[in-house]
Amino acid sequence: MVTTVADLQETVIKKWPFSMKAVGLEANIIREILKISSRPGLINFAGGLPAPELFPETDLKLATNRAFDKWGPAMLQYSITAGVTELREAIAKRMSRHVHMNFTADIIQITSGSQQGLDLIGRAFLNPGDYVLTERPTYLGALQAFNLVGAKYCTARLEDDGINIEEAEEQIKKYNPKLLYLVPNFQNPAGLTTSGEKREAIVELAKKYQIPIIDDNPYGELRYSGERQPSFKEIGGNAVIQLGTFSKIVAPGFRIGFIAACPEVMQTIERVKQSTDLHSNAFSQYILLEYIESGRLDDYHIPLLCEEYGKRRDTMIEMMEQEFPREVTFTRPEGGLFLWVTLPEKVSVSDMLNPAVEAGVAFVPGKPFYPHGDNDRHLRLNFCNASHEKIREGIKRLAKVFKDAL
Amino acid sequence: MVTTVADLQETVIKKWPFSMKAVGLEANIIREILKISSRPGLINFAGGLPAPELFPETDLKLATNRAFDKWGPAMLQYSITAGVTELREAIAKRMSRHVHMNFTADIIQITSGSQQGLDLIGRAFLNPGDYVLTERPTYLGALQAFNLVGAKYCTARLEDDGINIEEAEEQIKKYNPKLLYLVPNFQNPAGLTTSGEKREAIVELAKKYQIPIIDDNPYGELRYSGERQPSFKEIGGNAVIQLGTFSKIVAPGFRIGFIAACPEVMQTIERVKQSTDLHSNAFSQYILLEYIESGRLDDYHIPLLCEEYGKRRDTMIEMMEQEFPREVTFTRPEGGLFLWVTLPEKVSVSDMLNPAVEAGVAFVPGKPFYPHGDNDRHLRLNFCNASHEKIREGIKRLAKVFKDAL
Repeated sequence: MVTTVADLQETVIKKWPFSMKAVGLEANIIREILKISSRPGLINFAGGLPAPELFPETDLKLATNRAFDKWGPAMLQYSITAGVTELREAIAKRMSRHVHMNFTADIIQITSGSQQGLDLIGRAFLNPGDYVLTERPTYLGALQAFNLVGAKYCTARLEDDGINIEEAEEQIKKYNPKLLYLVPNFQNPAGLTTSGEKREAIVELAKKYQIPIIDDNPYGELRYSGERQPSFKEIGGNAVIQLGTFSKIVAPGFRIGFIAACPEVMQTIERVKQSTDLHSNAFSQYILLEYIESGRLDDYHIPLLCEEYGKRRDTMIEMMEQEFPREVTFTRPEGGLFLWVTLPEKVSVSDMLNPAVEAGVAFVPGKPFYPHGDNDRHLRLNFCNASHEKIREGIKRLAKVFKDAL
Repeated sequence: MVTTVADLQETVIKKWPFSMKAVGLEANIIREILKISSRPGLINFAGGLPAPELFPETDLKLATNRAFDKWGPAMLQYSITAGVTELREAIAKRMSRHVHMNFTADIIQITSGSQQGLDLIGRAFLNPGDYVLTERPTYLGALQAFNLVGAKYCTARLEDDGINIEEAEEQIKKYNPKLLYLVPNFQNPAGLTTSGEKREAIVELAKKYQIPIIDDNPYGELRYSGERQPSFKEIGGNAVIQLGTFSKIVAPGFRIGFIAACPEVMQTIERVKQSTDLHSNAFSQYILLEYIESGRLDDYHIPLLCEEYGKRRDTMIEMMEQEFPREVTFTRPEGGLFLWVTLPEKVSVSDMLNPAVEAGVAFVPGKPFYPHGDNDRHLRLNFCNASHEKIREGIKRLAKVFKDAL
């Protein structure tokens, strides 16, 4: 048989029989912006990327060599679906410390980043057409994961101290959602944190209506000011399924996150995980384990991140106060990566992205963070990724775009 | 708020509202057997585990240090969804060499192992109730992935040279399947290879009925004897979606596989992947890239694996010829990891697993490899994982179990 490249080009299948759900998928705007972000001179506040110059590269290199010596072939072999037991123990121990409770490895499922945690939860709980209650706005990656199983949404307005409880209860009564999905700490996209009182009120709703709470917590350990709030698990016991990740405090490239939930939920999640990818990368799990065990993550790296990210937040807020038109408002997050900018009612923020990129600065328009796409007055900025100098210059550029548009 | 461990134990949610698909999932028998395989003295022919003593540990350690020096923070940061471009180029180059065609990076999507490739394809193509045509028996991991999107199956008998073409066409006419799913090289579980003639006949079916071929090819580079068959891509052009993995030739713990398909399919797969986990572990992708570029994989490691695995296959077959009762037959694979044993009609192989484990040897019963679960006369053995000595002892133990049962 003679074969040429032309053979491959031959269109044997005329029309690809994609599934209905795949056809309905839209590209994630954040990842599309990531593609253009290599444009020379562009200051990118769009992505969820941590600052690369702060990665604990040297410590991870050391941890890698230690892991090779200590774990050898086990790092390279298939592992159990739940994930490397010693890492799950270390995660449970860290969680216990933060909430003053005793968690054990059996409540932890390792996932390929928080995004896979969302996907596994969507598949474990949602039938097509099932409702999820979310904050309004909410994390668009969660919407993408839940869309893929055909979810619908009901929402409650996000206020400075968390969702409006009355609206949430009305929506629960009306739509009978299967899950309550919340980002309680330094929310993505708005940067707001749910108060202890509202957490208790949400747990009461979960109990009354028997709806599990998904506590998506990628930023909880990145607090730069203000007081720690009690975690949902402390208040809500087994009603709470917590998602965590090492993407923001160690390295996104490792794709290591976790789900923490009661054994009954764990068993179902594990079976779904088994069918989707058998298990997450074992090699990086052992390296992360060695890094955590060395003490450097908790004693050195997280304090360092909190100090520097806190300063970058301050720089951005200071510049925004100086440069932005008076009618533009914004949140002042106590931690996390993002802040949320609100423009006057007349504008369409989506229409401002192209002029902004032309002016050398990128952001994420707020619209895709609204499950019903019905609000285009906001934008999300990442204040952690760029240097102080670039933050200053980027905010100046953005202020000019705002002034031109208003 | 006072919190105790007892609070966590409190059953707030009385009945978990799992999705219908999750409730229907069964645990993968191979991974369940993996859990018992730590039993002291057990000789385990059940898993799909490569031999850990043959992992290229030293070369991977060197590649890791080179990757840190060369790629630095890029290894730790978020990457694009398609995967690390340089690795995709290296994979396309390796594929081109094997099939004498010129592939480029844009037809490659990196996946978290082949299992995720199967999951992404299931989600990209299958609506609930859609049929997939498979070999009978077929790889149970594919059934698990496709079950999660509600697939149904029609099947064609696997003969020594591939599926029975007449039966396949009958089934296509009757059930109108959305995909043709095949493991053409050293099939899992049967160890059989589809001939060039049958590949051409299958491509004709794909053209005639406009059904894409999924060529699941984890073992293609592990050939120990016989002649290489033309790849499906060489014959079928864009009708063929190929799945590959580095789990069997480098390290399963890396969870690096890939999908190779035409750009239209790639775009849909990429969007599904984005919603499920953003991207696969970037850190291991860069290490694998450095390892491939060093030449050690192709020049040294794969030849070494082929030599040693070929010998282990010979040892197992020799022992089976000596020890097994005459009425027990088995395949003689030209490569891959598995061979397939057939027992007389009267027995139930599933019932023999417990006595076998008692006797200190584990296998996978063939039943779960049948989409309709209607055949219990077979079992699958992994001939690569155990040493020659353990293979000899394990086959003796198994022969005794057979003799007791027959």
